[in-house]
Amino acid sequence: MQIGRARQVVTADEIFDLVREDLNCVENAIRVESAASVPAVTTPISKYLEQDGEKRLRAALLLLCSRFAGGGNKRMAIQLGAVVEMLHAATLVHDEMIDGAQTRYAWPSDHIHRANRTCVLAGDWLYIRAFRVALQERVLDVVLGAAQTMVAAGLMQRDRIGRIGITESDCVELAERKTACLFSICGKLGAVAGGVDPRDGGKLGEFAWNLGMAVQLIDDVLEFSRDLEDGKVTLPLVYALEQASVSERDVVAAVLRDRGSDVVPLASVVALVDRYGGIPRTRERARRFADSARQIGAEFPNSVCRRALLTLTELVTERDG
Amino acid sequence: MQIGRARQVVTADEIFDLVREDLNCVENAIRVESAASVPAVTTPISKYLEQDGEKRLRAALLLLCSRFAGGGNKRMAIQLGAVVEMLHAATLVHDEMIDGAQTRYAWPSDHIHRANRTCVLAGDWLYIRAFRVALQERVLDVVLGAAQTMVAAGLMQRDRIGRIGITESDCVELAERKTACLFSICGKLGAVAGGVDPRDGGKLGEFAWNLGMAVQLIDDVLEFSRDLEDGKVTLPLVYALEQASVSERDVVAAVLRDRGSDVVPLASVVALVDRYGGIPRTRERARRFADSARQIGAEFPNSVCRRALLTLTELVTERDG
Repeated sequence: MQIGRARQVVTADEIFDLVREDLNCVENAIRVESAASVPAVTTPISKYLEQDGEKRLRAALLLLCSRFAGGGNKRMAIQLGAVVEMLHAATLVHDEMIDGAQTRYAWPSDHIHRANRTCVLAGDWLYIRAFRVALQERVLDVVLGAAQTMVAAGLMQRDRIGRIGITESDCVELAERKTACLFSICGKLGAVAGGVDPRDGGKLGEFAWNLGMAVQLIDDVLEFSRDLEDGKVTLPLVYALEQASVSERDVVAAVLRDRGSDVVPLASVVALVDRYGGIPRTRERARRFADSARQIGAEFPNSVCRRALLTLTELVTERDG
Repeated sequence: MQIGRARQVVTADEIFDLVREDLNCVENAIRVESAASVPAVTTPISKYLEQDGEKRLRAALLLLCSRFAGGGNKRMAIQLGAVVEMLHAATLVHDEMIDGAQTRYAWPSDHIHRANRTCVLAGDWLYIRAFRVALQERVLDVVLGAAQTMVAAGLMQRDRIGRIGITESDCVELAERKTACLFSICGKLGAVAGGVDPRDGGKLGEFAWNLGMAVQLIDDVLEFSRDLEDGKVTLPLVYALEQASVSERDVVAAVLRDRGSDVVPLASVVALVDRYGGIPRTRERARRFADSARQIGAEFPNSVCRRALLTLTELVTERDG
C-alpha cells in the first residue's frame, strides 16, 4: 500500500522493458505453435488466444527468472514461455464455457452449445501444442505434472460448488493447485533455461510459488461477486462466515442453494462479507504470501533482475483489476 | 456378408480369448491411471470410463499386433493398450457434450451445464494420464501426434456442420484423421512392444489404418440419423446427393439449415438416402478398406494371431450395432 499509482506504472513498465523483446518472441512462438495447417483449426484457436487480454505474466516471470539465473539458453526460455502461456490459456478456455444465464447477449441455446464445443477442442489443441514443445525441450514431465494438478483443481472446485463448509485451508490448497503450482514451474523452468543446476533453481521456484499464491488470492478478491454467482465459496466469504451468526450462515446457505433464482439476493451476502471485513482480510493474507516471496528474493544476489522480481511481488498485491 | 451370425460370434470370442488375459490387465492399468488421490477427481472420471461400453477394440488390436510381432515386451503392450483406450475415451468424453434438446431427460439447463463442465475436465484428466504413461514408455511423440490429428479432425468436423458441399474425399480425409490415424498407431505401437524393428512395423500400421477406415465408415452408416440431426453430412448422404436432383438438394440444404426446427422433416432426407442407395454404397466402400487390410494381412506369415487379425477385418464390416 506504500506504492503510489505513478510509481507503480513506471515500475511495471521497467519490468516489462527488461523482457519486452523476449516477450515479443514468445508471442511469435505462440502464434506459430497454435496455428495449424488447416484453416478450420486455426481460426477458432487464434480467436481464443487473442481474447486472453492478460499481460503474459507467467512468461514474463519465466523470462525474468531465466535472465536472473544467467540467461544461458535464451531460445529455450522463449519456447518455455510459450509453453506456460499456452497451458494457462488452455485451462482458461476450458473454464470459460458459458451457459445461457451467463451470457450478456441473447444467443440462442444451440449457438451457445456450438461455441462451447469449439471451446473444448480449441483448449485441447493448445494443451497438445504446449506438450509437444515441452517434449522437444525435455521438460514435459514437469509440465504434465503441472497440467494434471490444475485439472484436478478444476474438478475439486466443481465438487465444492454450492457447499458452505469450506475452510481457509481448503481455499489455500485450491489456490496452490490452481495457480501457485504453475508459477512455481515458471521459476524452476526459468532457472533451467538460464543455466542453473535444477537443484539450485529451488529458491526461484519457492519465490514464484509464493508470488502465485498472492496472485490467486487477489484474484479471489477481484472476482468475488462472479465466483459467488457461480456458487464458489472463496476466501473473502470463508473469513466472513467465521464470524457470522447462525442466521447469517443460513442466508448464505440459501443463496448458494438457490443461486440464480433471485429468491435471496446476492447483495445480502456481499453486505455480509463487507460487514466482517472478508475482503481486507483476504488482501492481508495475499500480502503475507507476497512478503514471503520478498524474503526469499532478498537473499538473491543483487541485480536489475532481482529488483524486477521484488517489484513484481508488490505489483501483484496492489492491482485492482 | 458370407459370414453367418453363429460363426461370427464364435470367431469374435476366439479373438478376444487370445488376448483376454492381457485385456484384463489393460482394464486394471486404466483403473490405476485414471484414479486420483483426490476423491472429488476420481468419482466423475471413473463414471465416464465405465459409461464407455465399447469392447476396447483399440487395445485388443494393439495386443494382437504385439503378439503377432513376437510378444517381446508384454508389460509395455499392456501399458500402451491403456494409453490408446484412455486417449479414445478422452476424445469421446469431449465429444459427448450435450445440449438441452439432445437429452431425453427433463434436466434443468444448469444441471446440463454442470455436467458438461465436468465432462471437459474429466476428458482433460484422461488425456494427461495417457500422455504420462506414453512418456514413461518413450512413445509420447507418436501419441501426441495422434491426439493432435484427432482434435484437428473434431474442429474440422465442427467447421463443416450444416454445409452441403462435402465431397467423398472430404469424408475419407475426416475418417482418416478421426479414426484410422489412432488405429494405425495401435498397429505400430503393438509392433514396437512386440519387439519388431519400428521400420518393419510399417505393414502392421498399414493393416491397422485400413481396418480403422472400415470401422469409421461403418460408424457413419450406423450413426447416420444421429449425425444428420447434428447437421453432419457423412458418406451415405454424400453418395445420395451425387445422384439427387436440384430440388432434392434444396430439401437437404433446408434440413441442414433449419435442423431442430422440424419445418422440413429429417425423414425426407432419410428417404432420399434410401432411394439412391447411400447406405449400401458406404458399406461397399468400407468393405474395400477391409479388403485392403486383408490383402496386407495375407502377406504376413501364418499364425493364430494372423488369423485373428484377418477375422477382425470381417467382423468390423459385418457389425450392425
